[in-house]
Amino acid sequence: MNAPIPTPRPRPDPETVATVTRALTERFGDRAVTGQAVREQHASTLTWVPNQPPDVVVYAHSTEEVQEIVRLCAAHRMPVVAFGTGTSLEGHVNAPYGGVSIDLMSMNRVLAVHAEDLDCVVQPGITRKALNEHLRDQGLFFPIDPGADASLGGMAATRASGTNAVRYGTMKDNVLALTAVLPNGDVVRTGSRARKSSAGYDLTRLMVGSEGTLGIITELTLRLSGIPEAISAGICPFPTIKAACDAVIVTIQSGLPVARIELLDEVQVAACNAYSKLGLPESPLLLLEFHGTDASVREQAERFGEIAAEYGGGPFEWATRAEERTRLWQARHDVYWAATALRPGAKVIATDVCVPISRLAECVDETKRDILDSGILAPIAGHVGDGNFHTSPLVMMDDADEIARVTGFIERLVQRAIAMEGTCTGEHGIGQKKMRFMEIEHGPEALDLMRTLKRSIDPDGIMNPGKVVAV
Amino acid sequence: MNAPIPTPRPRPDPETVATVTRALTERFGDRAVTGQAVREQHASTLTWVPNQPPDVVVYAHSTEEVQEIVRLCAAHRMPVVAFGTGTSLEGHVNAPYGGVSIDLMSMNRVLAVHAEDLDCVVQPGITRKALNEHLRDQGLFFPIDPGADASLGGMAATRASGTNAVRYGTMKDNVLALTAVLPNGDVVRTGSRARKSSAGYDLTRLMVGSEGTLGIITELTLRLSGIPEAISAGICPFPTIKAACDAVIVTIQSGLPVARIELLDEVQVAACNAYSKLGLPESPLLLLEFHGTDASVREQAERFGEIAAEYGGGPFEWATRAEERTRLWQARHDVYWAATALRPGAKVIATDVCVPISRLAECVDETKRDILDSGILAPIAGHVGDGNFHTSPLVMMDDADEIARVTGFIERLVQRAIAMEGTCTGEHGIGQKKMRFMEIEHGPEALDLMRTLKRSIDPDGIMNPGKVVAV
Repeated sequence: MNAPIPTPRPRPDPETVATVTRALTERFGDRAVTGQAVREQHASTLTWVPNQPPDVVVYAHSTEEVQEIVRLCAAHRMPVVAFGTGTSLEGHVNAPYGGVSIDLMSMNRVLAVHAEDLDCVVQPGITRKALNEHLRDQGLFFPIDPGADASLGGMAATRASGTNAVRYGTMKDNVLALTAVLPNGDVVRTGSRARKSSAGYDLTRLMVGSEGTLGIITELTLRLSGIPEAISAGICPFPTIKAACDAVIVTIQSGLPVARIELLDEVQVAACNAYSKLGLPESPLLLLEFHGTDASVREQAERFGEIAAEYGGGPFEWATRAEERTRLWQARHDVYWAATALRPGAKVIATDVCVPISRLAECVDETKRDILDSGILAPIAGHVGDGNFHTSPLVMMDDADEIARVTGFIERLVQRAIAMEGTCTGEHGIGQKKMRFMEIEHGPEALDLMRTLKRSIDPDGIMNPGKVVAV
Repeated sequence: MNAPIPTPRPRPDPETVATVTRALTERFGDRAVTGQAVREQHASTLTWVPNQPPDVVVYAHSTEEVQEIVRLCAAHRMPVVAFGTGTSLEGHVNAPYGGVSIDLMSMNRVLAVHAEDLDCVVQPGITRKALNEHLRDQGLFFPIDPGADASLGGMAATRASGTNAVRYGTMKDNVLALTAVLPNGDVVRTGSRARKSSAGYDLTRLMVGSEGTLGIITELTLRLSGIPEAISAGICPFPTIKAACDAVIVTIQSGLPVARIELLDEVQVAACNAYSKLGLPESPLLLLEFHGTDASVREQAERFGEIAAEYGGGPFEWATRAEERTRLWQARHDVYWAATALRPGAKVIATDVCVPISRLAECVDETKRDILDSGILAPIAGHVGDGNFHTSPLVMMDDADEIARVTGFIERLVQRAIAMEGTCTGEHGIGQKKMRFMEIEHGPEALDLMRTLKRSIDPDGIMNPGKVVAV
């Protein structure tokens, strides 16, 4: 494999660290923290990358404060890592070269809701659940829902999606504009509140998915959706993973506007039953949701029922009550934690890929076989309407042989997805762990272009170094 | 106004032009053309920028040929301008510094249709009508439809949209991946056929809307939609522009999934009646289309009828037959030509802005008043479901006073849209004519960031110089 080799970067020398830390402490008082526990918490990685703490953590309260911190770091060539809920899955918030972690979770206000324009302006630290809580009274919601109750800034930075993406798109489609602090300390506002624009380069989409390596997002204008008049959800078991995937393919191809169509394999169902105290049938399962008017929701559900039956699926059971639905989707969002509970003492290594929908059944099927052949435990769950699925191998971190088998399995999974014209990650992002797949997926020229962008915007490489692209 | 001042760039000296032309003629034979008529045709601008022809036009047949031409130009620091149908509206294809115009219209093949994945791969020279002709048998269509029968490469380059954008999005949302030749001659492939990805910087969206200033698009993977089971279209007159706009606002806010909702003011209706031989009622008019199943289309139409009635609109007349619908939408697409016919001898200066939908009625209303106050003739038409509208002042080019009044009017229109948190262009792009609004809209820092991107990817400024950003 022709992996890009990260240029070795020295950590800032102890004198620089001391100077910057002193300046931050003078300016921010007890909002600048150097205690080990806090530093380690800010390098939490829900994967197997070791904890690589920053030198200091600062809790920022405004765009101007973030700007001040970045300017200070720029002056001293000190790494800067933006931090939200710390729920990213590929080692995005680690500080392999030390530096300053800017904790944005105090910047969690809703600055404006423009109900008439179906948009709102928020600070980056608000979480998706808190935002939806805030919006509910106005009949609005923000549809992007990764598993964790992540912060909106982090969701934008990783180009997150979730269960509703098949209908509502991803963060790429739902961030109208944003404010970011660039590595040189400039504050840029990308985009307006207009629904569309052809006015120059798409800076919004440049920042969305850049994982804090090009700028730190300090404000977001988000596109909202109306809470549908009617919602119905249901579960539908299938005899095999392939039958379930085939039913998904036909559903999408027939243009049925499903809001959610999620797959759990029998291993993940068992995990969810145990963790979330559910009694789901322990076979490959699709979880569905339809949004619309009463009539259209009924029509969609009937059509899906017919498609499912063609592939031996069913019975299709409804969760019509709101509480039932909430419980079902909470269980879906908790798959990571359910997987964790499946094998006490093991670490969950969540990973995801995305393929064209026509290749989905084949890709999931081969992956299931690979799991068996590798002798590992790895539940599968996925936003299959997008061709996106996750698997979460459970690894005993003291078992070198198992680590090797899981490493090999993930390697093959990614190669399989790319060979099928897919991508090494549909929604988790690159972070530290998937950098080695960037050249395989994009080719050397496109990767070079990404490096050119990185170098031009962040010539000293201070922003989240060691992530996405090596410069 | 704090307009960016383009750095004066010398034209390549005659010797360089001769050298490059000789090399192109040797390599491409009669596909390299220096005749004045062809050169002037490749600088056609449907606006009031004077014709600025390139030194030579080359008809390219493949990505590799485009790469060869770009490499040659790069070696001689010769400007390169990509050319499609020449229907852009802000002086995008002019060659103010001379150079080579690469005509891509022979690259017009559909390379693959993946019906099962709702995507296709095309060359940049295919036009939207030719593509839809090709797709029809498979029950698929590509929804983006600017007024002209533009090429897909040009549509991507200008981030075009059209009448369907309110439901299907713009080029930003419907280009899954593309191949582009960079200024250094590298060929990059951005993205895969997966529906979504979090694998690194969004190079696709960087190229979409970059107007040939960062790379030349030589292949596109497009997202397709299924031709809806049921389509119904209709027209609805309103007593005033404001009443029509208010009805649009409520329609969008209520979440009605209209496929098209277009406004014509009474001046534009009269122009369309005359040009397209229609008998539309000569008052402010909404043209609508609904897509879905029979039941959902009926439901949507009923709801819209209720909303229209609240604002004094109606009667709502249906065009149920396919031919009637085609005629109606052809007339809509021909508004530019209809405007031209309104005042023989005048030049149509089409321009567009986009505002948050809540400001639409106010913005259109003020603009109508400004047209009256300015004593100019300027029909209004718009994709009002997005808050995007066009006006096309008709100018006698020998009337300096009229030119001054129209210039002032466009200036105020853009300032008005930006003041209402909108953008200086919703879909036409920046080209040459809107460069002076870039700093007002984006601010100096964001414009600087765009310049940084341009300089890093195209350090010698050879790609479509004098457009979008001045470097």
